[in-house]
Amino acid sequence: MKNFISIDDISDFNSLIDESISIKKNPFKYSHLGEKKAIGLIFFNKSLRTRLSMQKAAEMIGLKCFVMNFNNEGWNLEFENNAIMSTDKAEHIKEAAMVLSQYCDIIAIRKFPDLQNKDEDESEKILNSFIKYAEVPIINLESSIAHPLQALADAITIREHKKNVKPKIVLSWAPHPNPLPHAVANSFVKMVKRIDAEFVITNPVGYNLNSKITDGVTVTHDQNQAFKNADFIYAKNWSSYDKYGQVITKDKNWMIDNDLMSKTNDAYFMHCLPVRRNFVVADDVLDSGKSIVIKQAQNRIYSSLVVLKRILENEK
Amino acid sequence: MKNFISIDDISDFNSLIDESISIKKNPFKYSHLGEKKAIGLIFFNKSLRTRLSMQKAAEMIGLKCFVMNFNNEGWNLEFENNAIMSTDKAEHIKEAAMVLSQYCDIIAIRKFPDLQNKDEDESEKILNSFIKYAEVPIINLESSIAHPLQALADAITIREHKKNVKPKIVLSWAPHPNPLPHAVANSFVKMVKRIDAEFVITNPVGYNLNSKITDGVTVTHDQNQAFKNADFIYAKNWSSYDKYGQVITKDKNWMIDNDLMSKTNDAYFMHCLPVRRNFVVADDVLDSGKSIVIKQAQNRIYSSLVVLKRILENEK
Amino acid sequence: MKNFISIDDISDFNSLIDESISIKKNPFKYSHLGEKKAIGLIFFNKSLRTRLSMQKAAEMIGLKCFVMNFNNEGWNLEFENNAIMSTDKAEHIKEAAMVLSQYCDIIAIRKFPDLQNKDEDESEKILNSFIKYAEVPIINLESSIAHPLQALADAITIREHKKNVKPKIVLSWAPHPNPLPHAVANSFVKMVKRIDAEFVITNPVGYNLNSKITDGVTVTHDQNQAFKNADFIYAKNWSSYDKYGQVITKDKNWMIDNDLMSKTNDAYFMHCLPVRRNFVVADDVLDSGKSIVIKQAQNRIYSSLVVLKRILENEK
Repeated sequence: MKNFISIDDISDFNSLIDESISIKKNPFKYSHLGEKKAIGLIFFNKSLRTRLSMQKAAEMIGLKCFVMNFNNEGWNLEFENNAIMSTDKAEHIKEAAMVLSQYCDIIAIRKFPDLQNKDEDESEKILNSFIKYAEVPIINLESSIAHPLQALADAITIREHKKNVKPKIVLSWAPHPNPLPHAVANSFVKMVKRIDAEFVITNPVGYNLNSKITDGVTVTHDQNQAFKNADFIYAKNWSSYDKYGQVITKDKNWMIDNDLMSKTNDAYFMHCLPVRRNFVVADDVLDSGKSIVIKQAQNRIYSSLVVLKRILENEK
Repeated sequence: MKNFISIDDISDFNSLIDESISIKKNPFKYSHLGEKKAIGLIFFNKSLRTRLSMQKAAEMIGLKCFVMNFNNEGWNLEFENNAIMSTDKAEHIKEAAMVLSQYCDIIAIRKFPDLQNKDEDESEKILNSFIKYAEVPIINLESSIAHPLQALADAITIREHKKNVKPKIVLSWAPHPNPLPHAVANSFVKMVKRIDAEFVITNPVGYNLNSKITDGVTVTHDQNQAFKNADFIYAKNWSSYDKYGQVITKDKNWMIDNDLMSKTNDAYFMHCLPVRRNFVVADDVLDSGKSIVIKQAQNRIYSSLVVLKRILENEK
Repeated sequence: MKNFISIDDISDFNSLIDESISIKKNPFKYSHLGEKKAIGLIFFNKSLRTRLSMQKAAEMIGLKCFVMNFNNEGWNLEFENNAIMSTDKAEHIKEAAMVLSQYCDIIAIRKFPDLQNKDEDESEKILNSFIKYAEVPIINLESSIAHPLQALADAITIREHKKNVKPKIVLSWAPHPNPLPHAVANSFVKMVKRIDAEFVITNPVGYNLNSKITDGVTVTHDQNQAFKNADFIYAKNWSSYDKYGQVITKDKNWMIDNDLMSKTNDAYFMHCLPVRRNFVVADDVLDSGKSIVIKQAQNRIYSSLVVLKRILENEK
């Protein structure tokens, strides 16, 4: 593996899941791989799970970890080619990426979308500039359109909990007070397409995800119908993709509660966290024995670890 | 030791001091205890001594250290049960604490009181929520009502400097421009009660500490009288406890100066730092050979180290 | 080496460059020197290269690294002697420096000038207070008047690229939208004086650097003349030193472009970064094969490493 930007960067998805589950049993086994090397974690946005799970995975594989909150610790970056840099932007991404490559053997970046302009967000300016200019592998810690480390952790968690060969997995939109990105949902969709599953997406009218990503997946606006016989309910809010970045509805009927869960095949409840209690999901679902959100968070360590392993092995 | 929240969590106080002084001679002796483990340092407030002394102690015992300034690096936390999370709070403490427990083997937290509402502060919402929901040991890096790592460092420092079996120790209120918490004073009182000492607290009228904590201790408003024959003067400001969080007086007569110190038995001067020069204590006292404030700061390493040792041993 | 504050702290400049180039071949050779020790990196200003290159060098030499952004993580510091600390400054530098000395075996500090008051800036209050009060070696990570780790990295880079015994080196002022410090230029001048080179400084009228530092060096206002036969062009903006901190001109003719570079002896282009593209230097110069700015950034690791080595060896 060279970079890890998207689920598409994994050629052998199911064997990578096997490998993740194997590494989880002996997570310090590959601690020689990171020896004398360092990973730079570059944050343009807040982070709890991603920051700490990657720090833990880095420790396990023997990498030093340099964490930078770029907004307040680094220089404002210019991204345009041929720019005359006369404003508040003190450093061009080209130099920043090349310089970071001198100090870090891997660079991992988090940059959320602004949800103002679809084309702008989908251009993934920061992430793609790092890919273009950096001289070392790049890991996506959640960009405008993808959060593959989360989806990989979700795949591990599903593998660990599934009771039948081909479980029914439902990705359900849920209400949220604020406009949220599509990255988690996008990567979840791409991931489920790679595993053996019956897959249904359910969301209100106006909330269909990018059809290029959901191509071939059943999408229904009937949440109750979608939940029938489900083995896994993955709840997630996202803002409208068509009316880009807008909150069209906060319809509370879409909140995941016990009534909805009762329609499933005693399904597990999943969410990437952080989650708004009693807005996205009712307390009694989140606090039930069927909620595996903390297992997902735990598996963030192992999705990061297996990606680091693949990248470091490739570098040798 | 399971958690370290208060001086009360130490069952064998004097043998813990013995152990601290012993560890100080060979501080890397227990570096295997933290192997492959990590401590998360979660700051909701500023920190210099606490942050760095804990990082140093973690290094000594072989723990990786993940530092998070939660206010600007993490998500706003909701603490209420049954809350409908529709406001600016993106994550419930329950998830945050459980998730942190996946990445950290110990969680250490600093959260000062707001000094607006006594009941609110004394509920220790954040600290107690972590204790309730986290799956790993919790260390208090200074909460609304306690700063036990400081008090333990103070106990080590007193042990190292005392010249007689039962020294006279005076906790003296001193003026300060701003309203300060009671945590350091509270834990100091609890600590001195556990060691062999003659103990006097002196403060102006209206500044008595929580009587449940000072129960059984001599409290006098006559600072001059209190200082007589003292072996240790521990200066500290705190805001009024009765008129909660208020600054009733900044009476400069209460500032610790050479005139006051001359009434003592050539006492050592102590303060937890940071300290306001020439407001809390005069330069010539702080700069004198009897000032042991830097020794106290040094011993913060060893109070942290012995607590980490006890917790890690208990985990095995 | 006790402290590393200025190029003047290096007694054997050319042998230090030899040593740097030797260490670069085997950078983990001295990893025992930092064992069980820690360096504190104290930032009062932003940093990318300095922060990460020092973290990397610390890793190489076996030092733990404690990074503090003092403005938002630490207490406001008082620097005046005899101050009555009644304002917003909670801690005196004297205590801060002595306390940091308990936890760190080396303290490294970045504090830029405010460019409002020359005397104030040149007093190097923060840096000199740390030197005065700390009990451990101090490293300058860029102060008001000096950036010696940069100059040392530049010297290594020049050594690696020079084609003749005595290259012609030109330090050229270049335009910038904002007033910038003199630290990089000052240390570069001091460094070039220590190596075998023909040295010319060129800057507009009103932009002469501190004459005490440039004493003995050719200074010309004719940039075209200066560039003739140059082997190395080092571009840097600085604000006026005479009209202290002012931007007198942003004359675009001074921007380094291919036309100017064509007058040289196929010179290498150098800059400390971050650099404003198409304001300080044209894209085609910065992107050309003669630009060695990334090599300079890489050598920041080795200038830091050799300084850490010298300091740690001295401590033993």
